[in-house]
Amino acid sequence: MSETAPRPTLEAVAARAGVSRATVSRVVNGAHGVRDALAERVRHAVDELGYVPNQAARSLVTRRHDAIAVVAAEPETRVFADPYFAQQLRGISKELTAHDNQLVLLLTEGREDHARVGRYLAGGHVDGALVFSLHLDDPLPGLVRRAGVPTVFGGRPDWDDGQGGVVYVDSDNRGGAREAVRYLAALGRTRVAHITGPLDQTSAADRLAGFRDAAGEHAPGPVARGDFTPAGGERAMRELLDRCPEVDAVFAANDLTAAGALRVLRESGRRVPDDVAVVGFDDMLPVAEQTDPPLTTVRQDIEGMGRLMARLLLRDLDHAADDGDVGGVGDVEAGSAPDGSRSVVLPTTLVRRASA
Amino acid sequence: MSETAPRPTLEAVAARAGVSRATVSRVVNGAHGVRDALAERVRHAVDELGYVPNQAARSLVTRRHDAIAVVAAEPETRVFADPYFAQQLRGISKELTAHDNQLVLLLTEGREDHARVGRYLAGGHVDGALVFSLHLDDPLPGLVRRAGVPTVFGGRPDWDDGQGGVVYVDSDNRGGAREAVRYLAALGRTRVAHITGPLDQTSAADRLAGFRDAAGEHAPGPVARGDFTPAGGERAMRELLDRCPEVDAVFAANDLTAAGALRVLRESGRRVPDDVAVVGFDDMLPVAEQTDPPLTTVRQDIEGMGRLMARLLLRDLDHAADDGDVGGVGDVEAGSAPDGSRSVVLPTTLVRRASA
Repeated sequence: MSETAPRPTLEAVAARAGVSRATVSRVVNGAHGVRDALAERVRHAVDELGYVPNQAARSLVTRRHDAIAVVAAEPETRVFADPYFAQQLRGISKELTAHDNQLVLLLTEGREDHARVGRYLAGGHVDGALVFSLHLDDPLPGLVRRAGVPTVFGGRPDWDDGQGGVVYVDSDNRGGAREAVRYLAALGRTRVAHITGPLDQTSAADRLAGFRDAAGEHAPGPVARGDFTPAGGERAMRELLDRCPEVDAVFAANDLTAAGALRVLRESGRRVPDDVAVVGFDDMLPVAEQTDPPLTTVRQDIEGMGRLMARLLLRDLDHAADDGDVGGVGDVEAGSAPDGSRSVVLPTTLVRRASA
Repeated sequence: MSETAPRPTLEAVAARAGVSRATVSRVVNGAHGVRDALAERVRHAVDELGYVPNQAARSLVTRRHDAIAVVAAEPETRVFADPYFAQQLRGISKELTAHDNQLVLLLTEGREDHARVGRYLAGGHVDGALVFSLHLDDPLPGLVRRAGVPTVFGGRPDWDDGQGGVVYVDSDNRGGAREAVRYLAALGRTRVAHITGPLDQTSAADRLAGFRDAAGEHAPGPVARGDFTPAGGERAMRELLDRCPEVDAVFAANDLTAAGALRVLRESGRRVPDDVAVVGFDDMLPVAEQTDPPLTTVRQDIEGMGRLMARLLLRDLDHAADDGDVGGVGDVEAGSAPDGSRSVVLPTTLVRRASA
């Protein structure tokens, strides 16, 4: 264990800055009414001395830990390998840091560890939680609910009851899928197929619904099951070519799926986009730029979703009271969820490259 | 915010399991003396009801949070991109999970956020900290020290005073480098060059020292500065070929550096290993297997280092009291550090592939 040097005191900071103890205390606890120049002097002395406020005492006054947990219902290995999660985490980290809140990432090895995460959340170590839970039968949301901390979810939970009890941030998966299919129809394609994601995730189910909305009107084609991976995209594309050789367009549920589909189309001698046009979803970089040909796709603002999750939570905790409203990520207002709750659904944008 | 369902009580668990409140309390708090079958019944009832113990009350009894912080002195973006850190974290996660301790990863955007990390550590939210701090002038170790929580460092800190006040886990960087150079000399190479890492990191400095130990005796060659990146390896390799065209072997400070050096050797028409033999350090996969030719390298047990860091810390916290000693990662005993402290230095292994 490292030896413990004596901790500098509030008094030492006050002496160094040439101000009263009360002034130091107010600056350290983020209270208002201290002149900027004075506050700057105090912060300088805090830095010089390496002063660490007594958090326990501070929490008693502010009832805040200035710490937000991030929990993903995935084992540590997958969390670190997932570029989608990494991008959302980047947005969360920037937003929490901008409000001097500590990002506390709670990692697990698997589902059997979620009870422990629930205990940590209930233990008074964080002010709130940002939760990513993708799968229908996941016990994590229930554990978080019982822990009793304010929570914002990433992605619409499947069990959302529409009563406004759950706050989430999501992309307009259904609208984005509709736009992709209408774009393909406008190019003159008449047999637009869809490769789905895993349908126990709301994002995949919503994209399928959007496909059905638009394909039914414009360019009905077959549907094959995928799983958001390139290998799943390959399997589904082979199945589609078998079942419907005249297919002239594919809307893939995400970019990785599209990458797999493109490989199979090339192998089968189809030219993209001349014979078969392909549109993905996500605009996940560098994947979408490095496919052959580069991928036309439905862009969602993944980092922006992370920022917005953090912002919604902080607002409810009154951390961000000075910032006024929650706008500024895209041009979306809070409260745009179809169920009228305080959830936010961000718009998507079609990004045109070479594949469609 | 999600609505808060009423939390199940200790009484409810006791009723469901058909045992006394005291028995539930003992099982939940990990005390001994409850028969296995009974404990199993209690745990089953806990799971069924989703009971979350009152952590605050529990901490008062046990004085433990069963939570360990992991802190890296790198911004969030680099932490997630670094496969070396990801591997150590994997080891840490497995070990903490095996002892039902929560891994609390504290992320930051940069150095200016470290004071906030110090506050969180000092705030009574974790029992100890595992700290990765690579750079000489980093304020993080000082902040951790002042936070007063038990700490184990990943890698020997530069400022280690050798008084046993600091506990770290490291690889035998110096010994591994010596072995690499002696292996090259045994192959008959007489001009062995070295490309260093960034010398403000102890791992790079120790590997340079090992090179000097062995090259002086056997096969003295030139040294060029690198920075642990492929681009740095390329630059340094060009410099070495300019300064010493007769070089017949290169010991690179890590695998990424070796990958850059291999590219430049190929461009310059040198055959590897016939004209120039190359040895790396790390055995970082998939890099070391995917170079052309595959890389002979000094393997360090990166995941094992993470496990051992967690184990040393838990032992000092008496969490692992029931497990007996700390051995079992490799065949190393605690206390193998040259300064006689409780730090551990793990041995390395030469892995032979095609490049030397």
